[in-house]
Amino acid sequence: MGQISVPHDRYWGAQTARSLIHFNIGNDVKPPELIRALGILKKACALANNELGKLSDEKTKLIVQAADEVIAGKLDSHFPLRIWQTGSGTQSNMNANEVISNRAIEIAGGVLGSKKPVHPNDDVNMSQSSNDTFPTAMSIAAAVQVHEKLLPAARRLRDTLDKKAKEFDSIVKIGRTHLQDATPLTLGQEFSGYVTLLDDDIKRVEDAQAGLYKLAVGGTAVGTGLNSHPRFGEVAAKYIAQLTGLPFVSAANKFAALSSHNEFVFASGAVKSLACSAMKIANDVRWLASGPRCGLGELTIPENEPGSSIMPGKVNPTQCEAITMIAVQVIGNDTAIGVASSQGNFELNVFKPVIVFNFLNSVRLLADGFISFDEHCAIGIEPNRERIAEYVKNSLMLVTALNPHIGYDKSAQIAKKAHKDGSSLLEAAVALGHVTPEQFAEWVKAEEMTHP
Amino acid sequence: MGQISVPHDRYWGAQTARSLIHFNIGNDVKPPELIRALGILKKACALANNELGKLSDEKTKLIVQAADEVIAGKLDSHFPLRIWQTGSGTQSNMNANEVISNRAIEIAGGVLGSKKPVHPNDDVNMSQSSNDTFPTAMSIAAAVQVHEKLLPAARRLRDTLDKKAKEFDSIVKIGRTHLQDATPLTLGQEFSGYVTLLDDDIKRVEDAQAGLYKLAVGGTAVGTGLNSHPRFGEVAAKYIAQLTGLPFVSAANKFAALSSHNEFVFASGAVKSLACSAMKIANDVRWLASGPRCGLGELTIPENEPGSSIMPGKVNPTQCEAITMIAVQVIGNDTAIGVASSQGNFELNVFKPVIVFNFLNSVRLLADGFISFDEHCAIGIEPNRERIAEYVKNSLMLVTALNPHIGYDKSAQIAKKAHKDGSSLLEAAVALGHVTPEQFAEWVKAEEMTHP
Amino acid sequence: MGQISVPHDRYWGAQTARSLIHFNIGNDVKPPELIRALGILKKACALANNELGKLSDEKTKLIVQAADEVIAGKLDSHFPLRIWQTGSGTQSNMNANEVISNRAIEIAGGVLGSKKPVHPNDDVNMSQSSNDTFPTAMSIAAAVQVHEKLLPAARRLRDTLDKKAKEFDSIVKIGRTHLQDATPLTLGQEFSGYVTLLDDDIKRVEDAQAGLYKLAVGGTAVGTGLNSHPRFGEVAAKYIAQLTGLPFVSAANKFAALSSHNEFVFASGAVKSLACSAMKIANDVRWLASGPRCGLGELTIPENEPGSSIMPGKVNPTQCEAITMIAVQVIGNDTAIGVASSQGNFELNVFKPVIVFNFLNSVRLLADGFISFDEHCAIGIEPNRERIAEYVKNSLMLVTALNPHIGYDKSAQIAKKAHKDGSSLLEAAVALGHVTPEQFAEWVKAEEMTHP
Amino acid sequence: MGQISVPHDRYWGAQTARSLIHFNIGNDVKPPELIRALGILKKACALANNELGKLSDEKTKLIVQAADEVIAGKLDSHFPLRIWQTGSGTQSNMNANEVISNRAIEIAGGVLGSKKPVHPNDDVNMSQSSNDTFPTAMSIAAAVQVHEKLLPAARRLRDTLDKKAKEFDSIVKIGRTHLQDATPLTLGQEFSGYVTLLDDDIKRVEDAQAGLYKLAVGGTAVGTGLNSHPRFGEVAAKYIAQLTGLPFVSAANKFAALSSHNEFVFASGAVKSLACSAMKIANDVRWLASGPRCGLGELTIPENEPGSSIMPGKVNPTQCEAITMIAVQVIGNDTAIGVASSQGNFELNVFKPVIVFNFLNSVRLLADGFISFDEHCAIGIEPNRERIAEYVKNSLMLVTALNPHIGYDKSAQIAKKAHKDGSSLLEAAVALGHVTPEQFAEWVKAEEMTHP
Repeated sequence: MGQISVPHDRYWGAQTARSLIHFNIGNDVKPPELIRALGILKKACALANNELGKLSDEKTKLIVQAADEVIAGKLDSHFPLRIWQTGSGTQSNMNANEVISNRAIEIAGGVLGSKKPVHPNDDVNMSQSSNDTFPTAMSIAAAVQVHEKLLPAARRLRDTLDKKAKEFDSIVKIGRTHLQDATPLTLGQEFSGYVTLLDDDIKRVEDAQAGLYKLAVGGTAVGTGLNSHPRFGEVAAKYIAQLTGLPFVSAANKFAALSSHNEFVFASGAVKSLACSAMKIANDVRWLASGPRCGLGELTIPENEPGSSIMPGKVNPTQCEAITMIAVQVIGNDTAIGVASSQGNFELNVFKPVIVFNFLNSVRLLADGFISFDEHCAIGIEPNRERIAEYVKNSLMLVTALNPHIGYDKSAQIAKKAHKDGSSLLEAAVALGHVTPEQFAEWVKAEEMTHP
Repeated sequence: MGQISVPHDRYWGAQTARSLIHFNIGNDVKPPELIRALGILKKACALANNELGKLSDEKTKLIVQAADEVIAGKLDSHFPLRIWQTGSGTQSNMNANEVISNRAIEIAGGVLGSKKPVHPNDDVNMSQSSNDTFPTAMSIAAAVQVHEKLLPAARRLRDTLDKKAKEFDSIVKIGRTHLQDATPLTLGQEFSGYVTLLDDDIKRVEDAQAGLYKLAVGGTAVGTGLNSHPRFGEVAAKYIAQLTGLPFVSAANKFAALSSHNEFVFASGAVKSLACSAMKIANDVRWLASGPRCGLGELTIPENEPGSSIMPGKVNPTQCEAITMIAVQVIGNDTAIGVASSQGNFELNVFKPVIVFNFLNSVRLLADGFISFDEHCAIGIEPNRERIAEYVKNSLMLVTALNPHIGYDKSAQIAKKAHKDGSSLLEAAVALGHVTPEQFAEWVKAEEMTHP
Repeated sequence: MGQISVPHDRYWGAQTARSLIHFNIGNDVKPPELIRALGILKKACALANNELGKLSDEKTKLIVQAADEVIAGKLDSHFPLRIWQTGSGTQSNMNANEVISNRAIEIAGGVLGSKKPVHPNDDVNMSQSSNDTFPTAMSIAAAVQVHEKLLPAARRLRDTLDKKAKEFDSIVKIGRTHLQDATPLTLGQEFSGYVTLLDDDIKRVEDAQAGLYKLAVGGTAVGTGLNSHPRFGEVAAKYIAQLTGLPFVSAANKFAALSSHNEFVFASGAVKSLACSAMKIANDVRWLASGPRCGLGELTIPENEPGSSIMPGKVNPTQCEAITMIAVQVIGNDTAIGVASSQGNFELNVFKPVIVFNFLNSVRLLADGFISFDEHCAIGIEPNRERIAEYVKNSLMLVTALNPHIGYDKSAQIAKKAHKDGSSLLEAAVALGHVTPEQFAEWVKAEEMTHP
Repeated sequence: MGQISVPHDRYWGAQTARSLIHFNIGNDVKPPELIRALGILKKACALANNELGKLSDEKTKLIVQAADEVIAGKLDSHFPLRIWQTGSGTQSNMNANEVISNRAIEIAGGVLGSKKPVHPNDDVNMSQSSNDTFPTAMSIAAAVQVHEKLLPAARRLRDTLDKKAKEFDSIVKIGRTHLQDATPLTLGQEFSGYVTLLDDDIKRVEDAQAGLYKLAVGGTAVGTGLNSHPRFGEVAAKYIAQLTGLPFVSAANKFAALSSHNEFVFASGAVKSLACSAMKIANDVRWLASGPRCGLGELTIPENEPGSSIMPGKVNPTQCEAITMIAVQVIGNDTAIGVASSQGNFELNVFKPVIVFNFLNSVRLLADGFISFDEHCAIGIEPNRERIAEYVKNSLMLVTALNPHIGYDKSAQIAKKAHKDGSSLLEAAVALGHVTPEQFAEWVKAEEMTHP
């Protein structure tokens, strides 16, 4: 392989340095969520090896201490490798081994690069192979991010919308199907639909988490567990569960766990359902807030930036735009994840980095996007009661309320006249002599049409 | 709208006839699974209206009888409409109303087109709107097909592979990671990975069924349930559950049920995970069966067609090719479903036909594909024991078994010599004088390397 | 292989019959466009073999006559095979060989199945392999459909929109960016944007046709042309060009032509750009036609079906819904094509049927969809001049026209007052005493704001 | 809007600062290629305004000087905004205006934030709107990156493969179709297929560049060019062409240029075809280099990293893995681009940032990936002549060469015997007494089978 120089102020070693040369591709480095997961994994493996009598207390303590710094994000700058590298993530595993080993050596007062007293392969990587550690780190990173970031963010937006749904419960508004005027509902009912969309998606994401909790660790190179203690996978998973507070377990079949990542395909599908709801909700909000004069104008949203230097009331729905762009990205990421997971061969799928990269991107973007949309848009949504009422009053759809009183034919006659004249239903009804204004007021009540 | 002529020998009416003119697009008509679902829906709605005192026993009986014929597939030729029509599926709902009404009229001895004694709108469509019936039919069709076709087909292939896994349990073979020789495992272990992939996917599809069981029926035009009995959705769902034997329920929030179909996004994601497994398994099988002389040649598969008129042993893996093409199609279909479900506006998503079309296609193709792959390929997979043993014997990977006995350095020396000479490990080991043939035979046992 | 029975009333033979059993998958049979292309191919190959002295005049005449019937669509029912079969399309090629051979035998008065005087392999398939004939038929089918169906349909819609653009040239309307009111433009300008979108897309599709004109024929099994005359590819391509009137040529490198189909990836990308334009245009049309009372209401579109039984003016934009669903399908199909084309190995890509299936679907749907949208929607689009003028009059954006006359500050003051009061700019301007009604009329001319 | 604080050591202003708060989403900032394009755009606009007599020489000089620093990448740290922001890219345009204005003020000795003597809106953004500048910057960034990075990288790999094709021209090897042994070709022919794939893709990317050369600049807010000089778009495009050396022109129709980005859809399709070729080529290479003992082993590739600590000859095809992962990512990015471009409304598509982000990612990854694959893999590919020859010798496919001499039946008999015995064709042929060894040697020449 030849000589390779390593920077003095970095904990990484030859394997990492070599990878930097061979994979000088793009700008995307391994995301911090994954680095943290590698830290958790290495700590758990050290504890497991110690429990199984394979690693001394002293080495364990050193590895744990160094791994804790990785977990805390203190050593992120020592993980320079790109996404686009070996498809098993080998070099990222080696990077973790090298950094933790050297930092442990430093703590112990040893010489960096000496591999003493903590060897990157023999100690930090003990009982492990890249082929089982990297997918384990993928699972940890994904499950933790979903749990800590995505679900809370989705629930937060859900709660805001639920609050709005309750606030808007008595506001009767026109319904729209095919973008055409339809029978009325309340604005609260409309928002309750958004809440249910998110509730259902959140449930889906939670369901899909199950697959991410099954860990590959213990499978080593090909899934047989060669060179590891028979209980290693189980014990390591126990520690990972302790460290994260999430119900991780050792996957029952390691051959499947190394060679495919359909748990990510399924989880990405759940995340995509969240993205589709985000698209729908944000589109509704921006359409309902369109105007100020020449749009629908039923809602007002916060004005975060100047929409126009001269025209007041032009509030660009920029938060809607950000979240809908994110939804599109999530759809693209999902395509990449599916294709990647289908491409395993024999004992290994070598598209691991591209899978976890896209999944973490989707999770991060949606989580941040939900918080942004919530804080800078949803919280501030207000109904434009006047406009809403005007639409209901003007709508021809309410004519159906007259049916029981004057019959279908006369009702249709009223609607046709109003449509032709551009008049209101009341005007047309009275003009035709079919009802009195008092009768109209008594019989035509939009709010009565908002339930069965 | 003007006059429109309707063929004498068909039960459909004006609305269907008009749609045939306005939507003369492509060759894809509504699939039979969806027609059957419309039959189930209409029958259930008639029974619900009857139970709630809104539809007479006589009309109910007539509608049920006609609907039963739709369910039995006897009237498929009376459902000529394309997928590419109104995005709410309105015309397909009308088609069902017209056909069931006219067939019911015929049974009652009435005049086709007279709307007496069974009116297509007032009776067959009673308490319903296209906006809630079509998505209900989508859910029924999808859930029934998944239950009756996809899951049994997937389980059938799973069982065949499980049987093979057990049969092949003692066959030690070389592992391959990165397509490179790796440590050994048994052929049974390799197949157990396939079984687990399918087990996990089947579980995912089952989990995702939950969303398909929630029905939109009862929401009518905009989700408020206007013009329907407050209990209609619940009672109709009860009858649909009875008719199908599946746990359908009325969706708690109808606004969400009409305006998005993320339950299909999620279910499609689960189906996609099956497709990804199919791709992986079929790829492995065709690679392991590649040859006969210049490939891997570890497996033989059934010869269903002549691969070459002159060359024996050239068995093209055509079943693998069919199922991998299907996997690619499912990935494309999933993209379409996600985009479509994101595009709802206000009270309605008008991409319903394209969603159900793609979902049913994915389900049908995978189900048929699994049966075909099982029957014409998987069942007949046989190991080529000679070739498998030869690879294990030749592999340099086994040298690791010597480590505990002669140390790492001598082991590596043996491997390097064998690699350089193109000789076997045994030859190199003996030539170097590090072990005797007897020691080699005793120490180097591939089967010992297939577990922790 | 064993015995296989063949129906009496069909021209196909054993290979086709066997495929029907082994690939009983889904409902999708080879599309008629592809069958026609196989007819063209087989005719051209017979003529080429004849010209090169390899096939007798008599056999050539018989094959040509039978192939002409295939081209005319008379024998479509003799091509029963599914898409989901051997990935090289072998069985479909064999199906064509068998049908043409048997029909030629019948014409010659021979015995069906006797292979005399026209042998399916030796004569109809002379100088060919499935590996080069099927991709050639793919190219022919695709290029012909794009040329005969898609481009004319796109141009037809383009011309209608161009006519509208000219008709609407003097109608000043409000512009909308971010869905918010913006500076005005003419309705003609808005429609000119649609025309340009289609013009650009049409150009792209034409450019992408180039790749489809390069034919694989002559490459035989692996691209070397083994067993064919050195000039066979070139001469066959010449005849294909003659028969279709399109500039087909023999691909310079047959190894690439058999092992990848990126010409379809590129062409599908061009078709997708058409789909994206269709989505944009149809979305604009349905939004602008939304209402009748509670939407934007700037356009009216033809009422092809009853939108509501009682409410006049509710015109559901069903043609827009059909074409936007098609656009979504094209996006899904494009994903499938890309993945499929990336999966070739060595001398062959065995995802050919799924590639051509999706491409022909996209072309057919968009072509039919454009014609439908044109005929049943675009042609009948009319402006609602009153509403359009009202928006322009009410808009606050016009205030910028006062800047040069009264300065920015006073202009902004006017706009703010109008926004606050819900009044018109004119009212606010006069109320503030900044301008007279006459000055306002002279200075504020929306039409002046529609150009630089 | 309230007060907002801006860091002292940064050139950005309030609008950028506000965006940082409102769009704290994800880690992806605007890529340097886009920042450079904004610099080019702002410089060209200043020069155009100056030429058209709207901007003083002094201001022009200051803006040009500041913009040059942006172009040189010196001010990258002053562009902190995320991708996920306003869908028109407004804030990124404002960011550029603020940075260039403040840097110009600094050069002129003025006070940062004073907007004197160079105003961010009035001067730097003169004759422009975000709606036309951001898409112009998108086009510049995309076209420049394709021209400067992607095409040279693709050509470089193409040239290496072409050199290999020539070197390997006389090496006869077994062909493989359906992964099964097929008739022979030369290794040079196989590589010539790769060269043609890349040649065709490169041509496609070049063709698709045409759309990227049409610039939106001059359209201002809605495409009418309001508030700009009638010749501004044309003159600005002229300067952009001068600055980049690429044939940029002003788009003929600005309404289309602002509201859709199908030029990116088409260009992404071309880039995707490159990705598909990369997938195919890299897959072939890693399969042909599989082994060392239990794979195909026809090629050797450079050993960049240790594949196994003990097993020599295990060379993981890591460069193939990186480039195939990139191909998958490009497929996902293409999906996102298509969906995004379809979502324009009226005068604006507000998915611009997500479109350019994905396109630049695809271009950057493929460009870097090609260079990496070329340098660290392709250049070092060597044939394993012994293994290649052995396969050819062992293959049963060569039996077809005996047909003309001993007839089909005896040839098939030989092949069957060889297959059954596991012997060579020569052995079987001689054993059966059909040919002498001398005849076999004379008649069976694989190299004769590599051409028509």
